[in-house]
Amino acid sequence: MAGERASKEDLLNRLRRVEGQVRGIAGMVEQDTYCIDILTQVSAASRALQSVALGLLDTHMSHCVVAAARAGGAEQDAKLKEASAAIARLVRS
Amino acid sequence: MAGERASKEDLLNRLRRVEGQVRGIAGMVEQDTYCIDILTQVSAASRALQSVALGLLDTHMSHCVVAAARAGGAEQDAKLKEASAAIARLVRS
Amino acid sequence: MAGERASKEDLLNRLRRVEGQVRGIAGMVEQDTYCIDILTQVSAASRALQSVALGLLDTHMSHCVVAAARAGGAEQDAKLKEASAAIARLVRS
Amino acid sequence: MAGERASKEDLLNRLRRVEGQVRGIAGMVEQDTYCIDILTQVSAASRALQSVALGLLDTHMSHCVVAAARAGGAEQDAKLKEASAAIARLVRS
Repeated sequence: MAGERASKEDLLNRLRRVEGQVRGIAGMVEQDTYCIDILTQVSAASRALQSVALGLLDTHMSHCVVAAARAGGAEQDAKLKEASAAIARLVRS
Repeated sequence: MAGERASKEDLLNRLRRVEGQVRGIAGMVEQDTYCIDILTQVSAASRALQSVALGLLDTHMSHCVVAAARAGGAEQDAKLKEASAAIARLVRS
Repeated sequence: MAGERASKEDLLNRLRRVEGQVRGIAGMVEQDTYCIDILTQVSAASRALQSVALGLLDTHMSHCVVAAARAGGAEQDAKLKEASAAIARLVRS
Repeated sequence: MAGERASKEDLLNRLRRVEGQVRGIAGMVEQDTYCIDILTQVSAASRALQSVALGLLDTHMSHCVVAAARAGGAEQDAKLKEASAAIARLVRS
């Protein structure tokens, strides 16, 4: 319980940081900062979003996928299919 | 000139939209939305950031890289090296 | 059993196709084909490799991860950690 | 001239290495190697292909794009558009 709350707080902190990064990038565009410097910040924000996604996926696997695997049957198949599709979207985005 | 202003306005609009998406994702985490639905939004925000990066790179190539190619010499080499490094960071992020 | 064999055959066919694509790309380089046309083939081969990876991950999740989830305890923790690391490598590569 | 030949030799060597990696991955599937170990090799081959692509793009930029920038006009616009599309495919693959 406490662990889950901690991980939720951590996710929210990381998302607020990404939000700040994106706002910072808009500020750089506004002030005509050199393109390459803006691109460096965009790459950093992308990587931060990617980490958020991997964290969410971890939580999902260790809760929902594990529960579905124990339930077996249609529930298991549905959750595995759904997780695979989410992973594919991440890998391709 | 007007074209550049339009493209800057477009970039800013897109960045504000990404900022809104990231804030929306934080709201979903706050309300314990189903992980997979949050992940779908994270993938969408990542793709939107990627488009911003590709737009910035376009502008950079058609202005700075073209000018450097015409200048030739060390200026050209430096700009090409810098653009390559930025592209590599994007491809790997 | 038959299903697993079919999926293994399918993976092998896809890998042989990727191998042929890579050999074809080398041939294009050898013959000084236009860079952009080579790059198009490299992108296609990358996407094909990515699909192979997603197929392997699917198989892994529906066999090893499910079995570990049912076993629970340390076995489950180890397999989840390992799967997460593999997914992170894929997302970042 | 010698530089270009060296870089072509280097590209061909890297592509032959990727071809060998892909053949090795097929061998691992054939022998039912543990999925996670196969996935590690697939990620390595993907990264190697990505490096080949970045190398090709470098060569393209410093030859064709530079020449087009000096020519200017429609030639420049066409080459920039083509390079942007190739970069977008790479970033998204």
